[in-house]
Amino acid sequence: MEKPTGFKDYSIEETIIRKQLIEKIENVFRLFGFMPMEQIIMEKTNVLFAKSGDAIKDEVFLIKNEDVGLRFDLTLGMARYIASKRDLVKPIKRYIIEKVWRNEEAQKGRLREFLQADIDIIGVKEETAELEILKCLSTALDTLNLNYEILLNSRDFLDKYADENNIKNKQEVFRIIDKSDKIEERELIKQLEAMNAKPFIELIEKDKKLANEEKISLIKDYSEDFKVLSFLLQHFPNAKIKLSLVRGLDYYNRTIFEFKDESNLTIAAGGRYDNLLSIFGQGDFAIGGSIGFDRIWSLKREMFMKNTKKWFVYIINFPETLNASFEIAEKLRRNNIACDVNLTKRHISKQLEYANALNISHVIIVGKKELQEGKIKIRNMESGEEKILSIDETIKFFRMMKTG
Amino acid sequence: MEKPTGFKDYSIEETIIRKQLIEKIENVFRLFGFMPMEQIIMEKTNVLFAKSGDAIKDEVFLIKNEDVGLRFDLTLGMARYIASKRDLVKPIKRYIIEKVWRNEEAQKGRLREFLQADIDIIGVKEETAELEILKCLSTALDTLNLNYEILLNSRDFLDKYADENNIKNKQEVFRIIDKSDKIEERELIKQLEAMNAKPFIELIEKDKKLANEEKISLIKDYSEDFKVLSFLLQHFPNAKIKLSLVRGLDYYNRTIFEFKDESNLTIAAGGRYDNLLSIFGQGDFAIGGSIGFDRIWSLKREMFMKNTKKWFVYIINFPETLNASFEIAEKLRRNNIACDVNLTKRHISKQLEYANALNISHVIIVGKKELQEGKIKIRNMESGEEKILSIDETIKFFRMMKTG
Repeated sequence: MEKPTGFKDYSIEETIIRKQLIEKIENVFRLFGFMPMEQIIMEKTNVLFAKSGDAIKDEVFLIKNEDVGLRFDLTLGMARYIASKRDLVKPIKRYIIEKVWRNEEAQKGRLREFLQADIDIIGVKEETAELEILKCLSTALDTLNLNYEILLNSRDFLDKYADENNIKNKQEVFRIIDKSDKIEERELIKQLEAMNAKPFIELIEKDKKLANEEKISLIKDYSEDFKVLSFLLQHFPNAKIKLSLVRGLDYYNRTIFEFKDESNLTIAAGGRYDNLLSIFGQGDFAIGGSIGFDRIWSLKREMFMKNTKKWFVYIINFPETLNASFEIAEKLRRNNIACDVNLTKRHISKQLEYANALNISHVIIVGKKELQEGKIKIRNMESGEEKILSIDETIKFFRMMKTG
Repeated sequence: MEKPTGFKDYSIEETIIRKQLIEKIENVFRLFGFMPMEQIIMEKTNVLFAKSGDAIKDEVFLIKNEDVGLRFDLTLGMARYIASKRDLVKPIKRYIIEKVWRNEEAQKGRLREFLQADIDIIGVKEETAELEILKCLSTALDTLNLNYEILLNSRDFLDKYADENNIKNKQEVFRIIDKSDKIEERELIKQLEAMNAKPFIELIEKDKKLANEEKISLIKDYSEDFKVLSFLLQHFPNAKIKLSLVRGLDYYNRTIFEFKDESNLTIAAGGRYDNLLSIFGQGDFAIGGSIGFDRIWSLKREMFMKNTKKWFVYIINFPETLNASFEIAEKLRRNNIACDVNLTKRHISKQLEYANALNISHVIIVGKKELQEGKIKIRNMESGEEKILSIDETIKFFRMMKTG
């Protein structure tokens, strides 16, 4: 039987590496003082469609016979929860590393289930919130050894620029520009011309020609956000203002940003959404950023999977030493040494094959003869080196390996 | 706007504790040599209903316009995946700590989303697999400071006992007995009488009267599983055979077990399901156990939430020391000391209130005067004690707290 299209199974080896990467990201989030907050995976449709309306409707997995659907991002549920609470101490810095689902048409390799790592700050209007989010995301990406360029813009600027230039169908124009990385420039310009959106064609031209400072002074003519962007450029001198940067989601209203990898693919992104919480009952300043974990995984899987050697102890036994080997396992585990023990009646050579196949670094062989002297044999599976040690010596040996 | 009924939001404080508990369980699973394996949350309906059929149909969240539903346990998806792979090294010991969903009628406080912690061993027919699963689950429950009693039985015995006693509607009888903890004994007996299942009324009587050894010799008359059960009783002398123990799920076929808490509620359970993998294409021996994390959470929340003091550093600043305090935060974080920094322009007294409300143990006050001498002030929020230290001394101070 098959799994649904667009869903991916992961092997044990992949899961181990994925968990290590998640732990690295989570450690950075914690270092920056973000706190975890668990969310439910389903929301009522009035929450899901509160801001994006029809634009997202077709992409949501809806539940049969119920007015609920699976979350397509990690922001809406949090906003609904926080806006419903009156007694929360603000600002709130929260993180979440969990799955979201988008019911997109199942194309070649396109996933419909993916893991995202989000951080949000609720209750700070100052540009320090932007700085903290960008610092935290860039530190997390650094920890994963990724290269990236930071792009910055202001949604407020885009809005006002569109208004002053009498652009009628703003949302649609934004949606076209948002796809600029996916369609050819010629096609992009054609579509913008068809919408009478020449001022945005000019923006795209200016993105190629102008330096950061010139872009800032253009933004200054339309939005106060030029201050925030200048502040961020002081702390990230290599970041770039991209005047034509729009983020797809409708709830961003001020600063927006993207982290692009070497191939110009977005691996993290976010922005300010000061207007979102108010629809759920209690407004507040808010900004968030999201690392596209599964996007990064699909791009860098080979790199991440290189280092899969397991540090792990496997206990090999004979039928007559089975009970003893379980006791040895118990002692090791009590001393915080992870180990597995042979559970089958198969021959010692099969057990060694198994340990080899699993890439296990050390085996303990529990033989009757050594056991009578209170000892066991330890074999380094890489070098073949063997030692005969007492249980206490064995525990010391593995403890030293762990710390050393 | 509201959340769907039967779904629970968790606060930051709760999530921190929940994550600590999950980490404890996960550490035990790892100590026992179980490896993580990530699974998708949706499966096609032919997978979901492969074994349980109509019995579970009403409880599954189905996706609109698609032939898929959300998983209601963590076993089926794993069985589907492993049975589809030809090259896996066996035995496999996997663990998974993730959510499942059951679309039960939303009664008072009844959850429809809950977290389970599962371990499974695929490819071992020997009773050592039973032992390893029970040892690992009991160690995990011990780590959570829970009290429990282990109940054991054999599904194979129940099947054969029913057959020899000419019980016609076996599955239905099992389903009634499975509810024995939820309905009154009088009612239970009435229902069994109505189904001509007097031999099962006798089993319930015998459960009250017989000692473990007597039950084992009764099982011996029907099933080879008496050997496995005897073996397990050697290792768990306090465990009890419960002849009328049935586990609800249809895929168990041999050993079954339950961990009951002081109030006779099931907090962990599992069994052998040697026949399940073959429906997915490639049969093998299999056994698994599951800790009902959210069941335990709902029972012991108060106990777990007692210890919520945060070890955490908060940096207080003034507008003129804002940049400096960001630099200090960066240095601490580089030295692996988690800290948060004030992002707002509010007064120092408000910042101290905030640190108090968040239960933060230490604050750093970045004042202009101290800063000119290259120093900062550190206040212990519990004792009120203050120190003036250089950045390097500060790092040493917090590092010592961490290790000490």
